[in-house]
Amino acid sequence: MNDTTFEKSRLTLLGLGAMGTVLARAWLAAGHPLTVWNRTSTRAEPLAAEGATVAGTAAEAVAASDLVVTCLLDDISVGEALSDVDLTGKDLVNLTTGTPAQARARAAWAEKRGARFLDGGIMAVPPMIGAPGSGGYVFYSGSRALFDARQGALAIPAGAMYVGEDPGFAALHDVALLSAMTGMFAGVSHAFALIRKEEIAPKDFAPLLVDWLTAMAPYVYGVAGHLESGDYTKGVVSNLAMMVEGNSTLLRTAEEQGVSSELLTPFMALMERRLAAGHSNEGTTGVIDLLTH
Amino acid sequence: MNDTTFEKSRLTLLGLGAMGTVLARAWLAAGHPLTVWNRTSTRAEPLAAEGATVAGTAAEAVAASDLVVTCLLDDISVGEALSDVDLTGKDLVNLTTGTPAQARARAAWAEKRGARFLDGGIMAVPPMIGAPGSGGYVFYSGSRALFDARQGALAIPAGAMYVGEDPGFAALHDVALLSAMTGMFAGVSHAFALIRKEEIAPKDFAPLLVDWLTAMAPYVYGVAGHLESGDYTKGVVSNLAMMVEGNSTLLRTAEEQGVSSELLTPFMALMERRLAAGHSNEGTTGVIDLLTH
Repeated sequence: MNDTTFEKSRLTLLGLGAMGTVLARAWLAAGHPLTVWNRTSTRAEPLAAEGATVAGTAAEAVAASDLVVTCLLDDISVGEALSDVDLTGKDLVNLTTGTPAQARARAAWAEKRGARFLDGGIMAVPPMIGAPGSGGYVFYSGSRALFDARQGALAIPAGAMYVGEDPGFAALHDVALLSAMTGMFAGVSHAFALIRKEEIAPKDFAPLLVDWLTAMAPYVYGVAGHLESGDYTKGVVSNLAMMVEGNSTLLRTAEEQGVSSELLTPFMALMERRLAAGHSNEGTTGVIDLLTH
Repeated sequence: MNDTTFEKSRLTLLGLGAMGTVLARAWLAAGHPLTVWNRTSTRAEPLAAEGATVAGTAAEAVAASDLVVTCLLDDISVGEALSDVDLTGKDLVNLTTGTPAQARARAAWAEKRGARFLDGGIMAVPPMIGAPGSGGYVFYSGSRALFDARQGALAIPAGAMYVGEDPGFAALHDVALLSAMTGMFAGVSHAFALIRKEEIAPKDFAPLLVDWLTAMAPYVYGVAGHLESGDYTKGVVSNLAMMVEGNSTLLRTAEEQGVSSELLTPFMALMERRLAAGHSNEGTTGVIDLLTH
């Protein structure tokens, strides 16, 4: 060790799927000593060549480091891999995809076993990991002390964003953003279907659509303001009455173009229900009330 | 007239609803002599005070200018207002909301009456009209000659974007973008519903959601590339098999949070159908094929 380097903390990573493998590479590239384990051990071989220590069992892997990261298939796999493993004094960071309830249960389970626990929701695809500037990041929630102590290592693969002590919040933020994206992709699919049989080149239409969606995304701030204040009419320009009227043009156009309207009608039906309940001066925020029960 | 001014072309505007009124003001503010007509004449009074000439009938209004803009309630209103009016030699620009088929039929009708015809789809709400930098614009399609001759006046209220000789293309572009936005708003509604009962402030969540949607909007370019090439697997990172797997976490989370999944399930069902048809390595582009019949 010379005066321009210092020792990076040792990590253990359980799970070497597509995401686990790129996480491992990011930590190795940053100089963190890394112990890896995967149920199918062949996945570990290329990483061994790149400097990782390959453990024969999950217990051996966990014993090697105080900071243990799991990136397994699902929450059940986490329970299975760690069922007989001593977690006393460990910092367990779970990057396995799951629901908020699964994260909360796993946090309680880890605490009982003497570990600090942090859950993570990865807002990136594998090529964005270890690529500064890719925009990828990870939501973290659970032990603030663990996050503060390990932030340096956690921020290596992608930006680290702490969203609360509730261990379910990382998964909840993750799922909420992915759900919104699912809606956007549904709308995008419908839009492309509408122009499909026309002499409109998808490549000419694409930038118009991207610019439009980007320009309309800040509508979200208006919705947030409505939910904060409880006044769903504040700042509304296109009100629900106008939007429901406009929906008929959208549906009629879909019919003209031979496109099923199945991706749009559920939202339109909720807009109509809210309008029928007397909320013509609102925007779409009232739909949120109809979704929650 | 002094050497720093020149005469702006005279326009006629039929229809003074919320949008027509702001269009009128934009042209008046830019120095265009303007004749207006509205079925309910009281809507014209404030504009008269601002310099507009108010016509007693639609025929008088049309007779006053070579460039006639309609911004009426719907396509039927256009036919009614102009039913007995001489349109010979006129440039008729229809900014009335309608479907592509309505625009095409109205174009044929106008041509028979001796007018050039341009249809417009306004991608703006009234406050964005006459406000440079607001980002609002109008799609135009139909007579290229009319568009070229009148572009100066047409570009006054908002940016003017010509999208083709087919008079239905402006409405089609308009409806396609609004349809995509509808999907995005549906997704946004679901996302806010998920965090509703948690101690997550909508104002803290909003910027995360806006940034995420903005970051994901360029997914559209990938879809366009798939449609151009016919190869729906090109550049796909999260493939359909992974996405369908991920959907189960989205649905399970919705259930945990007491949120109806009705806004997400139609798109997920189409993803599953496409996957079941053997397209696991695609993204979501194949859903577009399932929507068109």
